[in-house]
Amino acid sequence: MATMQAVIKSQPAPGLELTRTPIPAPGPREVLVQVQATSICGTDIHIYNWDRWSQGRIRPPLIVGHEFAGVIIEAGDAVRPDEPQVGDFVSAESHVVCGICQQCRLGQGHVCQNTQIIGVDRDGCYAEYIALPVENAWKNPADMPLPVASLQENFGNAVHTIAATDVRGKTVLITGCGPAGLMSIPVARAFGAEVVVATDLSPYRLKLAQTLGADLALNPVEEDVATRAQDAVREKGFDVLIEMSGAPSALVQGLSLLKPGGQAALLGLAPRPLNDFDLNNLVIMKGITLHGIAGRRLWETWYQMRALLAAGVIDLAPVITHEFPLSRWQEAMETMASGKSGKIVMYPGS
Amino acid sequence: MATMQAVIKSQPAPGLELTRTPIPAPGPREVLVQVQATSICGTDIHIYNWDRWSQGRIRPPLIVGHEFAGVIIEAGDAVRPDEPQVGDFVSAESHVVCGICQQCRLGQGHVCQNTQIIGVDRDGCYAEYIALPVENAWKNPADMPLPVASLQENFGNAVHTIAATDVRGKTVLITGCGPAGLMSIPVARAFGAEVVVATDLSPYRLKLAQTLGADLALNPVEEDVATRAQDAVREKGFDVLIEMSGAPSALVQGLSLLKPGGQAALLGLAPRPLNDFDLNNLVIMKGITLHGIAGRRLWETWYQMRALLAAGVIDLAPVITHEFPLSRWQEAMETMASGKSGKIVMYPGS
Amino acid sequence: MATMQAVIKSQPAPGLELTRTPIPAPGPREVLVQVQATSICGTDIHIYNWDRWSQGRIRPPLIVGHEFAGVIIEAGDAVRPDEPQVGDFVSAESHVVCGICQQCRLGQGHVCQNTQIIGVDRDGCYAEYIALPVENAWKNPADMPLPVASLQENFGNAVHTIAATDVRGKTVLITGCGPAGLMSIPVARAFGAEVVVATDLSPYRLKLAQTLGADLALNPVEEDVATRAQDAVREKGFDVLIEMSGAPSALVQGLSLLKPGGQAALLGLAPRPLNDFDLNNLVIMKGITLHGIAGRRLWETWYQMRALLAAGVIDLAPVITHEFPLSRWQEAMETMASGKSGKIVMYPGS
Amino acid sequence: MATMQAVIKSQPAPGLELTRTPIPAPGPREVLVQVQATSICGTDIHIYNWDRWSQGRIRPPLIVGHEFAGVIIEAGDAVRPDEPQVGDFVSAESHVVCGICQQCRLGQGHVCQNTQIIGVDRDGCYAEYIALPVENAWKNPADMPLPVASLQENFGNAVHTIAATDVRGKTVLITGCGPAGLMSIPVARAFGAEVVVATDLSPYRLKLAQTLGADLALNPVEEDVATRAQDAVREKGFDVLIEMSGAPSALVQGLSLLKPGGQAALLGLAPRPLNDFDLNNLVIMKGITLHGIAGRRLWETWYQMRALLAAGVIDLAPVITHEFPLSRWQEAMETMASGKSGKIVMYPGS
Repeated sequence: MATMQAVIKSQPAPGLELTRTPIPAPGPREVLVQVQATSICGTDIHIYNWDRWSQGRIRPPLIVGHEFAGVIIEAGDAVRPDEPQVGDFVSAESHVVCGICQQCRLGQGHVCQNTQIIGVDRDGCYAEYIALPVENAWKNPADMPLPVASLQENFGNAVHTIAATDVRGKTVLITGCGPAGLMSIPVARAFGAEVVVATDLSPYRLKLAQTLGADLALNPVEEDVATRAQDAVREKGFDVLIEMSGAPSALVQGLSLLKPGGQAALLGLAPRPLNDFDLNNLVIMKGITLHGIAGRRLWETWYQMRALLAAGVIDLAPVITHEFPLSRWQEAMETMASGKSGKIVMYPGS
Repeated sequence: MATMQAVIKSQPAPGLELTRTPIPAPGPREVLVQVQATSICGTDIHIYNWDRWSQGRIRPPLIVGHEFAGVIIEAGDAVRPDEPQVGDFVSAESHVVCGICQQCRLGQGHVCQNTQIIGVDRDGCYAEYIALPVENAWKNPADMPLPVASLQENFGNAVHTIAATDVRGKTVLITGCGPAGLMSIPVARAFGAEVVVATDLSPYRLKLAQTLGADLALNPVEEDVATRAQDAVREKGFDVLIEMSGAPSALVQGLSLLKPGGQAALLGLAPRPLNDFDLNNLVIMKGITLHGIAGRRLWETWYQMRALLAAGVIDLAPVITHEFPLSRWQEAMETMASGKSGKIVMYPGS
Repeated sequence: MATMQAVIKSQPAPGLELTRTPIPAPGPREVLVQVQATSICGTDIHIYNWDRWSQGRIRPPLIVGHEFAGVIIEAGDAVRPDEPQVGDFVSAESHVVCGICQQCRLGQGHVCQNTQIIGVDRDGCYAEYIALPVENAWKNPADMPLPVASLQENFGNAVHTIAATDVRGKTVLITGCGPAGLMSIPVARAFGAEVVVATDLSPYRLKLAQTLGADLALNPVEEDVATRAQDAVREKGFDVLIEMSGAPSALVQGLSLLKPGGQAALLGLAPRPLNDFDLNNLVIMKGITLHGIAGRRLWETWYQMRALLAAGVIDLAPVITHEFPLSRWQEAMETMASGKSGKIVMYPGS
Repeated sequence: MATMQAVIKSQPAPGLELTRTPIPAPGPREVLVQVQATSICGTDIHIYNWDRWSQGRIRPPLIVGHEFAGVIIEAGDAVRPDEPQVGDFVSAESHVVCGICQQCRLGQGHVCQNTQIIGVDRDGCYAEYIALPVENAWKNPADMPLPVASLQENFGNAVHTIAATDVRGKTVLITGCGPAGLMSIPVARAFGAEVVVATDLSPYRLKLAQTLGADLALNPVEEDVATRAQDAVREKGFDVLIEMSGAPSALVQGLSLLKPGGQAALLGLAPRPLNDFDLNNLVIMKGITLHGIAGRRLWETWYQMRALLAAGVIDLAPVITHEFPLSRWQEAMETMASGKSGKIVMYPGS
């Protein structure tokens, strides 16, 4: 049986290992993809570290990783001619959904009750090959740069978060400039935001935020965001909050700076439950609408991504700060964990 | 100068007093209303008790009260012929808004930045007469029962909260059966809810909830709401949460019982900031949309109220549990504070 | 090979015939349903008459009919355990959609580019048995009356049309009281309409409209609708138009009677293109929003139907005016064509 | 009494005349504006030509014109400090609305039942001075170019039309490249459209459409729009139609080229009622949503305009093709009527 290089969680314990494992065989409605690039998500770091969430969810042995791009080299018998075919250059939606539950049937597949996530609940893409349902393969233009093709899954988080609100002609505050926060900046702009202010504690990331097009990139500890933003936003406060950091202080500051009647979309996950959270003044009495964001809308977000990239209005290149061969996965993950990176891309078989 | 009976907060201290004070003169765009009925809101109890919120906001001396109905007996010079006139039987929107700020100009007058609330920021209606802007007077059908006409301001909270969500064919959980919660039950039904389950700790209120039409009225401490509701809601969880209690435990339970992708509308104000609030699992990862609700939409909510009452599909009579002459205001407020009441109506001059 | 009774279009010419034909075998993702009741839709009459539309679309031989209910007696190998099973009492969505086109992937399956309609593009249900994709089978409560279960496909048209607008607290004009128009009346009411006025030329149907709950049922040729409705709607004009007749005169009258800023949903198909249609004054300058309605939303409409029927707020019994054995299909269709009927149900094998 | 230069319709007959007339005195809630620039709208041409619509609506004598910018030189007694003041550089919303009718009270002031339009129902701005309600004055940045400030009223039509749909990541067809159509091109782009294709019969205007940023600018008589656009739009058909021409053939072509489930917004007014209009196939069976567009949303559209111009993402300069002193109004209007112009600006007192 043919084998391949793969990064796996072999034991219920911290760490990962690079090993060889059999190349998977695609089922009748699956395709086998030769992985050409894969990128690192914060979730992968959690699994590597074996944090509490991982301990409750991951069942080793498991190939990790869920962001990737590659070429289909084999298709199951039941793949239809109008679906992705052998030879197609594809990326993938990482949520494998059931299609049967009420959420799926109501167009809310992104919160399917039976979701299986690639690299979390089933084998992932830190490998030379991955088999996945053909429905989850998204055909890319042949000339899309590999790193961009790989990070689309995460780009989709940014697009979904921005698209959950109406930013047309609005002033937007983005709290948190990790990769998803960074990518939200040009998306907000492309969907019509007048002003985009980004906050983060890291000077490295604030510099990237400026490169990505933020009007202002501010450290909320060192600067008074309201005062600094005042000229740009004109009216008092922001119309829209995009919370990408998971930091409770960012959430509170963001909600405080929202205008009455404003909208917030929250993607960032807090490290622990909130304390001293003044829901009355931050949300209820101000008449705020708040959207919890999970995954990407199936498939509206992918169509929006495709359009944004095809229109050439968004340049994701600055988000990609490091590239490694997959064999140097450990160095890549440590770079990611350092906070001094944007998106990191790894190349199998190199 | 003619005087009138009024219940006023005369000092920055607990308590109120029944006294005589001059009858106000309406300005050019105001009307003078002879108050025929006034009803008690939780806010009035806060002012009576002189809690922290009251201490920060109320500037004595002030006539309290903001729910009422009565007849216009005088109109200012600049009141137009197509506006409410002398002789009209009216209720009032308690939020006097500026009409100029961005919120007002964008159809979000309910969160106007310069709102003045009747009985809070300007003289209220626990009196024989009240002067208020003609824009705030809402003309009632002449045959509307006085107590119903009076409590419309609070009924509007219920209508606004339900209308912020889409309950058509949905399963709805209403947490909290004070007057606004109680009135939400028939509103949810009238707007298309399939199933309405209400929760409260008070047997008195749960009984009222049943009278108002709840499919189930449950004490969440004594009963397992999920299990009890299972047959009624069929799928696991509720589609919509209507939080009317302000109790953190109710909010958490309500969000826990929401389906992924569900909607919540929150009117209840918590007595203190939330602790140990798991926003990740309750809101973000489930893709919940959460609406903070303030006041009534100007004037959409009033048109919806008018329609609901005119259609005869809602009977608010069971919500009104006690009636007093205004001179017995103290007894009325103590009854309200006891928790063993629905809405309490008082009649000036009787 | 086992055979069954079926009503088929055998030739590209007017007429149908009752004959025997093989019982179909379900594919791997199909179920075989024993038809217990089937109901007649206007489309079936068109096919019977072999009108221009039929000539362009129907490819004989074909079993006609698309509204039915029955019991699954066989399921294909690839039917999953959480899908409808042998023994389940089901109705069916008549649109078999591809699941792959952009519309399907964006939650617009009701306008799938590759739709095949049962009884139009593939064999239908005027027969003892029908095979169809398991995705199209909708499980009913075991105690749902057979005629109601059968007409759900058409009931869904009414639900979809009403749900495309916001009728909460609104005044609604329904033009056309065929079965879909009739069923719209209680749906509008259940979703919160304050006032429902229905129009039709047929006294028979107007009487049914009253039975179904219309506040007013008017013949627009004999009565001035605006004048008659004035007291009921209070403000000038209606908030919502539900056009179910396809009559150009009804469309024009309905749009004329809409308030500025009103909404219209159109299901009725005109017998020919419109002439002298004043789009400027009827739609553009009034700022009207107009929704073209096709089929049922997949699967939102079915969930809404299930809820409306389960809540017991809608009684469809009065819509069902005639019942026949399938063997008397010709008499049934002539009754339908006469205009003096509501919904007509036929029973195979009886 | 001081007088001013003004272009008036003095008789119920074709033509206009430049004359002197008293400077108006502002009422208590009005401001007097010194007009610095005024621009020509198609409506002004209709009034000049005294077409049927003008004959039915205009009551001479009347100063015409409704697009302008200028400086407030006097304010009525009841103008509040937080409203535009003497010295402010303002443009104006041309619809003077009542604020009292149901539409106004429901946030639909753009279709107020009692609208009075400047230059149509009350004296306009082809003059050195104009008095208008302070609510209708919109304060501009002091450095906004005069011609841009003047044409905002018409720019608002474009913004309102685009904003009535969701163009984020969508393919957009704009039929008609008069000034409003031309300005729609960059608005569509700014609000997130992936592809914008514009059509018109005039080579002059198609050239402007390219300058304004259309991906393709096509003459639908000379070229097959579907074929030419195919590569750009990728999927078959457009997601959104923006109809700005009023030409029935453009409306029909635009609706034909819409995808099933697509959206259309219609601003263009047809010269006569539609004939042979196939509503079934163009709208109903495709499940199209169609928005009739009137005026500008009060005041959402103005805030969106302000944001688009402040963000610097839209350059309206190419739309302004001609400038004249007001004294050469006739030459200006003839140029406008020739079809060989974009927007034409006139300067009073020069």
